[in-house]
Amino acid sequence: SPAAERLRHILGEDDTTPTPTIFTEMDTLQHDGEELEWKESARWVKFEEKVEEGGERWSKPHVSTLTLHSLFELRTCLQTGSILLDLEGYSLPQIVEEIVDRQIADGLVPPDLKEKIIFVLLRKHRHQTKKPIHRSLADIGKSSNTPSNRSPQVNLTRSTSSASGIHRSTEDLRSRQSSSLGHLHPAQSRSMNDISDTPSTDQLKNKFMKKIPRDAEASNVLIGEVDFLDKPFVSFVRLAQATTLGGLTEVPVPTRFLFILLGPQGKTKSYNEIGRAIATLMVDDLFSDVAYKARDRDDLIAGVDEFLDEVIVLPPGEWDPKIRIEPPKKVPSAEMRKSVLNLNELGQMNGSAGGAAGGEDDELPVQHELGEELKFTGRFCGGLWLDIKRKIPFYCSDIYDGFHIQSISAVLFIYLGCITNAITFGGLLGDATDNYQGVMESFLGTALAGTVFCLFGGQPLIILSSTGPILIFEKLLYEFSKNNSIDYMELRLWIGLHSCLQCFLLVVSDASYIIKYMTRFTEEGFSSLISFIFISDAIKKMVAAFKYYPINRGFKPDYVTSYKCECVAPDQASAVGLNVSAPMSDDNMTLLFNLTDLDWSQLSKKECVKYGGALVGSSCKYVPDLALMSFILFIGTYSMTVSLKKFKFSRYFPTKLRCLISDFAIILAIMFFCGLDCLLELDTPKLHVPIQIKPTRSDRGWFVLPFGKNPWWWYLASFVPALLVTILIFMDQQISAVIVNRKENKLKKGCGYHLDLFWVGVLMAVCSFMGLPWYVAATVISIAHIDSLKMESECSAPGEQPQFLGVREQRLTGILVFVLTGLSVFLAPILQYIPMPVLYGVFLYMGVASLSGIQFWERIKLYLMPPKHQPDFSFLRHVPLRRVHLFTLVQILCLAVLWILKSTFLAIIFPVMILGLMVVRKLLDLMFSQHDLAWLDDILPD
Amino acid sequence: SPAAERLRHILGEDDTTPTPTIFTEMDTLQHDGEELEWKESARWVKFEEKVEEGGERWSKPHVSTLTLHSLFELRTCLQTGSILLDLEGYSLPQIVEEIVDRQIADGLVPPDLKEKIIFVLLRKHRHQTKKPIHRSLADIGKSSNTPSNRSPQVNLTRSTSSASGIHRSTEDLRSRQSSSLGHLHPAQSRSMNDISDTPSTDQLKNKFMKKIPRDAEASNVLIGEVDFLDKPFVSFVRLAQATTLGGLTEVPVPTRFLFILLGPQGKTKSYNEIGRAIATLMVDDLFSDVAYKARDRDDLIAGVDEFLDEVIVLPPGEWDPKIRIEPPKKVPSAEMRKSVLNLNELGQMNGSAGGAAGGEDDELPVQHELGEELKFTGRFCGGLWLDIKRKIPFYCSDIYDGFHIQSISAVLFIYLGCITNAITFGGLLGDATDNYQGVMESFLGTALAGTVFCLFGGQPLIILSSTGPILIFEKLLYEFSKNNSIDYMELRLWIGLHSCLQCFLLVVSDASYIIKYMTRFTEEGFSSLISFIFISDAIKKMVAAFKYYPINRGFKPDYVTSYKCECVAPDQASAVGLNVSAPMSDDNMTLLFNLTDLDWSQLSKKECVKYGGALVGSSCKYVPDLALMSFILFIGTYSMTVSLKKFKFSRYFPTKLRCLISDFAIILAIMFFCGLDCLLELDTPKLHVPIQIKPTRSDRGWFVLPFGKNPWWWYLASFVPALLVTILIFMDQQISAVIVNRKENKLKKGCGYHLDLFWVGVLMAVCSFMGLPWYVAATVISIAHIDSLKMESECSAPGEQPQFLGVREQRLTGILVFVLTGLSVFLAPILQYIPMPVLYGVFLYMGVASLSGIQFWERIKLYLMPPKHQPDFSFLRHVPLRRVHLFTLVQILCLAVLWILKSTFLAIIFPVMILGLMVVRKLLDLMFSQHDLAWLDDILPD
Repeated sequence: SPAAERLRHILGEDDTTPTPTIFTEMDTLQHDGEELEWKESARWVKFEEKVEEGGERWSKPHVSTLTLHSLFELRTCLQTGSILLDLEGYSLPQIVEEIVDRQIADGLVPPDLKEKIIFVLLRKHRHQTKKPIHRSLADIGKSSNTPSNRSPQVNLTRSTSSASGIHRSTEDLRSRQSSSLGHLHPAQSRSMNDISDTPSTDQLKNKFMKKIPRDAEASNVLIGEVDFLDKPFVSFVRLAQATTLGGLTEVPVPTRFLFILLGPQGKTKSYNEIGRAIATLMVDDLFSDVAYKARDRDDLIAGVDEFLDEVIVLPPGEWDPKIRIEPPKKVPSAEMRKSVLNLNELGQMNGSAGGAAGGEDDELPVQHELGEELKFTGRFCGGLWLDIKRKIPFYCSDIYDGFHIQSISAVLFIYLGCITNAITFGGLLGDATDNYQGVMESFLGTALAGTVFCLFGGQPLIILSSTGPILIFEKLLYEFSKNNSIDYMELRLWIGLHSCLQCFLLVVSDASYIIKYMTRFTEEGFSSLISFIFISDAIKKMVAAFKYYPINRGFKPDYVTSYKCECVAPDQASAVGLNVSAPMSDDNMTLLFNLTDLDWSQLSKKECVKYGGALVGSSCKYVPDLALMSFILFIGTYSMTVSLKKFKFSRYFPTKLRCLISDFAIILAIMFFCGLDCLLELDTPKLHVPIQIKPTRSDRGWFVLPFGKNPWWWYLASFVPALLVTILIFMDQQISAVIVNRKENKLKKGCGYHLDLFWVGVLMAVCSFMGLPWYVAATVISIAHIDSLKMESECSAPGEQPQFLGVREQRLTGILVFVLTGLSVFLAPILQYIPMPVLYGVFLYMGVASLSGIQFWERIKLYLMPPKHQPDFSFLRHVPLRRVHLFTLVQILCLAVLWILKSTFLAIIFPVMILGLMVVRKLLDLMFSQHDLAWLDDILPD
Repeated sequence: SPAAERLRHILGEDDTTPTPTIFTEMDTLQHDGEELEWKESARWVKFEEKVEEGGERWSKPHVSTLTLHSLFELRTCLQTGSILLDLEGYSLPQIVEEIVDRQIADGLVPPDLKEKIIFVLLRKHRHQTKKPIHRSLADIGKSSNTPSNRSPQVNLTRSTSSASGIHRSTEDLRSRQSSSLGHLHPAQSRSMNDISDTPSTDQLKNKFMKKIPRDAEASNVLIGEVDFLDKPFVSFVRLAQATTLGGLTEVPVPTRFLFILLGPQGKTKSYNEIGRAIATLMVDDLFSDVAYKARDRDDLIAGVDEFLDEVIVLPPGEWDPKIRIEPPKKVPSAEMRKSVLNLNELGQMNGSAGGAAGGEDDELPVQHELGEELKFTGRFCGGLWLDIKRKIPFYCSDIYDGFHIQSISAVLFIYLGCITNAITFGGLLGDATDNYQGVMESFLGTALAGTVFCLFGGQPLIILSSTGPILIFEKLLYEFSKNNSIDYMELRLWIGLHSCLQCFLLVVSDASYIIKYMTRFTEEGFSSLISFIFISDAIKKMVAAFKYYPINRGFKPDYVTSYKCECVAPDQASAVGLNVSAPMSDDNMTLLFNLTDLDWSQLSKKECVKYGGALVGSSCKYVPDLALMSFILFIGTYSMTVSLKKFKFSRYFPTKLRCLISDFAIILAIMFFCGLDCLLELDTPKLHVPIQIKPTRSDRGWFVLPFGKNPWWWYLASFVPALLVTILIFMDQQISAVIVNRKENKLKKGCGYHLDLFWVGVLMAVCSFMGLPWYVAATVISIAHIDSLKMESECSAPGEQPQFLGVREQRLTGILVFVLTGLSVFLAPILQYIPMPVLYGVFLYMGVASLSGIQFWERIKLYLMPPKHQPDFSFLRHVPLRRVHLFTLVQILCLAVLWILKSTFLAIIFPVMILGLMVVRKLLDLMFSQHDLAWLDDILPD
């Protein structure tokens, strides 16, 4: 089209200099009391904000809905009005004078109106920012005295034909204006002073300034109705230099464009619509470019035509024009629109610019790319060397990027997750290995491994932790060594050393590149399994509380007298026997001399059992209140965390406060329920942190000797179990790393799969020597770590969605978390107030939260939704529902098989199962077309 | 404008016959295997539903977003193509032949193409309804074998420029089409059979039919690209009679309009957009009228022009055309749009048709009208007589309208509310009056009063119940009579009789008309007070459970042996003394002979206290588990009810099931938590329903004698307290009635304020004679009753919001509720399983739910919201925020004063306080302008 042709010409000229962002303010001519003034009625940064006349407030930012009519009228205005491009202007009076002179010169306006027009155009500007708060009390008395101001009579007639209402108000305005024009000159001098060259304090104080980009320039739209004109006075002005024109604009932004429309009376609405149309055009990325670069009137009109060609039209019967449309999450970028313009040149995209419904079927989703980190270099240590080269430049920023308030919340949150994990796995490991590795080892190991990894690892956002598969391996290993009279610690050391060596082999040979065969299918399988383990563990532990603190279900308050639990002495003989066999302590001496009923009844439950007494009574096996209290704490912590997290999206309180509450949701929930627990003073199970630094088992030291206890050939044979451990660690570590490094997290500092694995290997060896548990990346906590460090853009135009900018990538939070974990040994006095059920609630939350981001989970939900209620996922637009369901079903089956295997002794080959998932994925290529897989999963590399 | 002029002419001709609704189907020419066929690609009832090509499903209904370009192209098509109006058509082949002949006659198409065009137009039509489900398994093997079908190669090239992709697929299509046209004739005969005269089974079975109004006619849009044309072949056909044209349409709806666009190749997207444009126009209320009544081509073009004049335009930079816009809650009605058309005639509404942002400031909210029920007739019994006349015609429908599944849910819900209320107030009354009125009286009174009121009252949706103010009055009255040795029951009877008489006076004098001075301000004050009472009562009762079942906070599980509670015998002497003074029963005899330690220890707590024993031990004053269990039941019932109510708006399960779950939310929550309670077998406090029908106090009968016990002058003096009761009853009853009869409930059978008051008066007298409590309308339960009977429209076009149609107005649910309440005396064995905390949870829910509908509550929330996050309430657009806040503050202060008064002895003049609220409202006229009050409240009548 000729318009597009013209635009390509002017836009293509010097595409190097970007044009400033435009802020548009529209002022309309109003009658305040006896004076005429320009009153701000709307403004645009990107979306429209309107002044609510009655509400005296800004509306929410919304998409400007225009009428086609107004756009055509605007086009006519630009065709007939005077266009002044690159006018040298330094003050408003001078500019106005030039405009009017030009109009007179062009014969558009008779010279005798010059003074009147200049008078009107130089009236005072009133902006919405000047909130007349001081009036609020004064109003109370006034409003009842001056009912005619708001004219309740007019209100009460409820004229259904709004037309006649408008007619009346127009006449009203006319009579007022003529009266004001009567005493024209007395007001002029005062009004002129208002238009000064320097920004007023009101302007400078305006907080709205921070919503406007720094380079912004203003465009002012002035729309008014006057009685002395008989045809519209239209002028479009571009100044040669952006100039601050006193109080013209509500913010101290220099004005570049002026659009003036003064018209004869009776068409206020029409004029307003034209004003809105030009204002909307001015903030349009493409048109503002045109406005900056236009050489003449025709360029501007071509810009309008191109805009018209791109507009989206809503049918009047399907949409109510009164609805204000909320700004969309994403709008087409200016670049994209310009490229469409250039494609039009080729003449192939006819009618597709606004193709709302057509065209997307040919598209494919953006492929999940793993980047160059996983390329197979083929050189010795090639990947590792690249990783180090990639990470070194960021090392300093890795430290100072951590200094941010958000880090505090992240550290607290992850710290609590870590110590909960350390305590849980420590306890379980202690059980499994007869305390060869207990809570103490777990704490110190976590602190050591975590700190080292965060200091030197390739991806410091990854949090190391004990994981389920490793626990199961240790359990089986301990049982094996006990049954075969092999020294467990020594055997474990050798396995660790072999495994470390194998890791090094994987590192030097760039083996991590096979990770790229892991698609969403495999990742989702793995991470949902881990999430389910978190959830089921939390629930299991809660159920265990009901077993540990049984409720006396038959309790009748009235028969409280029949509930007791007494310690009854055993036969005298057996009691003496006990004392004889036991070494003679002071306690036992006392006991021997006091074997009366009274003594026995004062023993505690444990003592009673210890001294061989029998517990008799109906309340012995019950513990009141604790189970239910634990349940309340568990559910309460979970629900409060969920609610506070959601609070971010509520309407209450300023955004910053809401974000703060949401960021600290877990801490707040924990503190609240710890407080509640303290208040009720119930003896709920509390977090138990070891106080003294010594190995849990007294017969082992802090260093394991590699030789002497087992036959020599074990040193070699441990190669085989080590292979299993290596696969396990490799898979566990690298899948978590892939999930952390996902494109959607927008990480900028690159990742280091090889470097990560190197340090995991080193730590394997160190931990084995010190008899500490082995550590590997923990998916759920790592994701939580990333989530708590997400950054969003702060300065955005009103209505624009804040953009997810990326993650605060740094090493500080990780290091602090693990240093704190180490120091927790000294924090016992504080930590001991945290009830365990509260921590189980946090576990449940972490499991559920990490599930909710997974597409697999969204697809499972689709089973329960009738097709018409399903969300508009892009894959549903492109893949038939039954194929989607089939794909989900395959995933569910795989997960079920994994879950069953995990629950049996086969758990040890769990990592191999993940490899199995990759095979299943390969087989899916036979079941699904590549098109479907591209939408539901990723396409496997060749 | 000339277009509007033309339209006014044809639309004004015969406005009496409404045109049928149009269903539009758009089919595009596709290449399936080797054959050409027409494939359905979108359909419109009111909104657009698109076939998702890849997803093989219907998209969600959405607003059709068009391009301006396509509308202009469509206009050109209508200008140049052939227009056949009122064509006599009986079968598709005949119609197609006539179309092509006309084109040839007009010289638009060379005659040699006739056969080819007819061949293409008579191809088989495939509709989206035929879901190839059977394929789903067959696909599994196939898709991998025929990768070329979906061409993964194309997918994998990930061409960012979609233009070239389109280019390629177009060429693809061209090559396919030319190959199919090669063997043209063999397929023809088969295809012709497909177009039969009778609807196929597929059509008849199509469930979509129920979404289309009965009178609907179809318009078929056929869009295709062929290689034998060099300019577009466009035809717009209106048949003289709507005719079923075989398999043309997916549903058996007769076709009235046909739009055919066949064009040369290379512009598929453009053609599709034109097709969407005409389809959208066809379902537009105004254009479809034009299409039915058009006399010639120019009329149609005028219709398009008028449509263009009304369209809403979205700027390309502020909206992404790919977003499918959800249908709005409300669209401008066709009548409104036609009236705008007529107003245009007056030439005053220039540019206001699509005035998205302008014009609403002059509007006033629709005033709250009370209707003629509250007019002051000035005649004796005038209002009562009108009430009876108004209600009589509905009496039969009042019964049979109740037969609906929804009634069951409503009955169960309200029944539970009623008995909870009856038990609560019964218990409180029993306490207050030394059991002169107890739970038994409360049950029977509720049943009696409720049944009578629902049978004969003016507004049977109102539920009578005991209320707080009455309770307080009874309490004060009983204390007064006890202190002054006056017979309570006789005094109460006389007060009741006086009050009944006073009610009659109010009825005959039409005094209820003063209710119209009660505006939203007064109503909101009253109903939020009642809601707060519900909420605070529920919480108070829950807190009381913690006092009643104290938790042993210092309990240490290990020291269970030291917790016991023993009944210790008092001195032998005092024990004997007890036995001597008490009558000698068998029990006491046994006791006397067995005053050993053993016996005492086997006594229950109550027995022990009864026989003068002392309870010794640390567990005596504690009750385990019950308080916490009660709390879990309370919170659980409340949260489950809230969640299930919200479930209606979730995406899961079909709409009907969700509505069912939401309707039965309270019952489901009660059943679930009763089940949980049964499962745990804990002795939580249960609902206690009396079993035998006898007065709670044995020294009173079922009939109170009016004379004999008090001095005669009391019979007259009771006039004074009766006056207080009358005011109380009048206010309580009528405010509830006003709330129930609100406009927004869309009640159709009228109300009967005078009749209601008459029956309340009668029941006062009856209840006084029988010594039963007094009853009056209960706001919260009545609102719950209405909410549970709300009706919504079922059949609506896809995407259209179901409309709230009104309330199932009938007497059956009310009657059943109260009959059940009466029968509850026999239902004790079932009801005794319901724990009281569950009912408190229901109370809490009722209080919170009735608050949530109140604008006052919404305004309170505004205090906590920063202005930019506040919802777009219409009053916020018209009243400055500080005025809104000021108004809310006045309401909060009034409420606080009421709350304080309620908590003191002044509670008895509570109804007078409501009159006080009306005075405050009158004073607000001095503080606020009528404009502000019209938005925030209602304007007082003169």
